Order: sequence, then structure tokens, then C-alpha cells
Amino acid sequence: MSVPADSLSAMNSTLDTRAVAAAYVDALEARDWGRLTDLLAEDVVYEMPQTRERIRGRGALLQFNVEYPGDWHLSVRRLVADGPTAAVLMEARVDGETQEACVWLELSDQGRITRIVDYWPEPYEPPTGREHLVERW
Amino acid sequence: MSVPADSLSAMNSTLDTRAVAAAYVDALEARDWGRLTDLLAEDVVYEMPQTRERIRGRGALLQFNVEYPGDWHLSVRRLVADGPTAAVLMEARVDGETQEACVWLELSDQGRITRIVDYWPEPYEPPTGREHLVERW
Repeated sequence: MSVPADSLSAMNSTLDTRAVAAAYVDALEARDWGRLTDLLAEDVVYEMPQTRERIRGRGALLQFNVEYPGDWHLSVRRLVADGPTAAVLMEARVDGETQEACVWLELSDQGRITRIVDYWPEPYEPPTGREHLVERW
Repeated sequence: MSVPADSLSAMNSTLDTRAVAAAYVDALEARDWGRLTDLLAEDVVYEMPQTRERIRGRGALLQFNVEYPGDWHLSVRRLVADGPTAAVLMEARVDGETQEACVWLELSDQGRITRIVDYWPEPYEPPTGREHLVERW
């Protein structure tokens, strides 16, 4: 069977990206700062659009994670990888509470993470007027 | 060049999923309910974990979208597709305000959307103690 070389390359890139995205969460959870350093590009940019916060550079991002307060534990719930980009639905347990994060990753040609965009959606009360269509859990 | 058949199949599935995910957002934006119907599995499940709300079935989900209040406009900011799953970072403009949503999609073997999980992260104030590492925008 024959496929174009660029499709093959995209497929390999997806496999690598999937592995890097999983390793990123694993390294954070393990507090394995050496491994995390290897995964990140030196000029990585980390953004949290909800607070309009940005961290520039591997050094600052490592420090941010080292200093992050609480007994936090992370695991992957969903992982979608596509060429050099990935989306991770991450479960975060912090001091007994569970929250989910949507994490968007971009990788360089060398397979290092160059951009991380984190969303931390919070629970809220549903608006009225759609009770006839929804069930709650 | 030779690749295993299941890898080729995964690659084709990713292409289909990417197209379906983009068409889902387009059909919503266009209020094209016929096209949306064609994209959804009859037993599609739609979930909003932040409010713990669930909508079961294509009919109820169509009605939910038809009835959704406000002058809302949707577009795709990021789209990551991987076999039968996709993640979409969607921009929603509602009555002049912009919000982002993280949308997770699952497709059936027939290429119809069987599961949609929507997160709507809201802005919040950053905690103190990390000002030395972050910039704001």
C-alpha cells in the first residue's frame, strides 16, 4: 500500500506528539523536573487565558510548577494528538477536590513543547429555561 | 512506501473526524439544522460537566441549540483530530462578548457524532504569589 511521504510524516509526528503529551502530564505528576525540562523547549510559552497570565521560558515555567501550592495530582482523561498539536483533558486532584483542565499543546519540529494553553473550567449553576431538555448528574 | 493497514485506516479516520468536527461548528453557526441532524448520531449524548447537565438524543440536542438564547456566533480556533475523537477550541461571541469553549467529540464507526462534552471556562482573578513568574495581558 502506498501513501504520500508527507502523510507518513504526519502520522509519525502524531505518534510522537501523543507520547510527549502523556509524558508531560506524567513528569508533572512525578515532580520529575529533569524529565519535564527535557520535554520543554527553552523558549516555551505557557498561557492561562482565563486570568490573562503568561509565563515565558522553561526556567520560569519549571519554577511555577515547583512552587505550585497544594497536594496536587494529575492524570490524563482524554488525549487527542494531531501532527504537532495535542489536546489533553486532564484531571487534577488538589487537596481532595477534583477539577478538570483542558490543555492545548504545540510541539516544535524537534518534538519539544513550545506552547501550552491551559483552561480550568469551574462548576457553575445552569441557567433556567432548559430543564425540559436536560438531566442532571 | 508501506504502512500497516490499520495505520492507514486510522489516518483516514482522522481526516474524516477533522471534517466532521469543523462541519459541526459550521452547521451550528449557520443554524443549518438539517446539516446538523446529518452529523449527529440518533443517540448522541451531550454533556456539560461544569453544570452536571446531560442531553440525550438528537431531537433534544437540536431543540437545545434551536432554543439557545442570544445572538451567538461560533468559530473554530483550534481543531485537533485523532482517529474517531476530536478536540475543538471554539470561540463563541454572544451579544458582543467573546468566550471560549473546549469541545470534545467522539464519532461512531459510521462517522456520526455520538458524544459531545463541552467546557465553558470563565475568566477569574489569578491567585497571589506567582506575580514574579507571570506577565498579564
